[in-house]
Amino acid sequence: MDWLDSVKWDGDGLVPVIAQEAATGDVLMFAWMNREALAETVRRGQAVYWSRSRGRLWHKGEESGHVQQVHELRLDCDADVILMKVTQLGHAPGIACHTGRHSCFFRRYEDGAWRTVDPVLKDPESIYK
Amino acid sequence: MDWLDSVKWDGDGLVPVIAQEAATGDVLMFAWMNREALAETVRRGQAVYWSRSRGRLWHKGEESGHVQQVHELRLDCDADVILMKVTQLGHAPGIACHTGRHSCFFRRYEDGAWRTVDPVLKDPESIYK
Repeated sequence: MDWLDSVKWDGDGLVPVIAQEAATGDVLMFAWMNREALAETVRRGQAVYWSRSRGRLWHKGEESGHVQQVHELRLDCDADVILMKVTQLGHAPGIACHTGRHSCFFRRYEDGAWRTVDPVLKDPESIYK
Repeated sequence: MDWLDSVKWDGDGLVPVIAQEAATGDVLMFAWMNREALAETVRRGQAVYWSRSRGRLWHKGEESGHVQQVHELRLDCDADVILMKVTQLGHAPGIACHTGRHSCFFRRYEDGAWRTVDPVLKDPESIYK
């Protein structure tokens, strides 16, 4: 699989992945894939990451139902970062973050502090039952 | 500086940074910052990264003139990734990539291969004189 060999995997065999919502352009989250996760993502057409905390493949949405349908994969100039265009399924508007927010990037820098500026769309306790 | 301490720096003292064009939503590039780079970015209002290859601060555009004006900084739920909204200056349309392309993510996955799908806007030889 040449296209998998073209990716410059880091010392841990991982590549950083940016998930961007196709319809809005919103950057939803950032995670990691290993070779198997990337192959599985392409095979399923849904995001499969490598969970560094759990040390296993993580089919995004496997618990929450918040699956990411993958429309496009892009590789950067150094072949060591992937950008993925997705539709965030399972809730409208899409919830990518485990906090129940649309995007993981819900804190904005303002005057020397990170302020939470985006609302919780669904209580995480009802997402992860 | 509490806001700098809130960032979860990795084992090398770095945090990954996604640069997104404010006007278009295009993801332009991915790079790294250390504490000093992030502080400088906020102080200048322009992107200052940590160049891992050169082992020094890298004021984006210092050679190319392709400076990034920073409009917004966001921190993710785990406090270990930064999303930055920028205007890519120095050329119209903006050139963020050292290959002379708009975005570093110019290769798209198609049928088992990464295909270059975005044009070179300016010859890199004339960018880096």
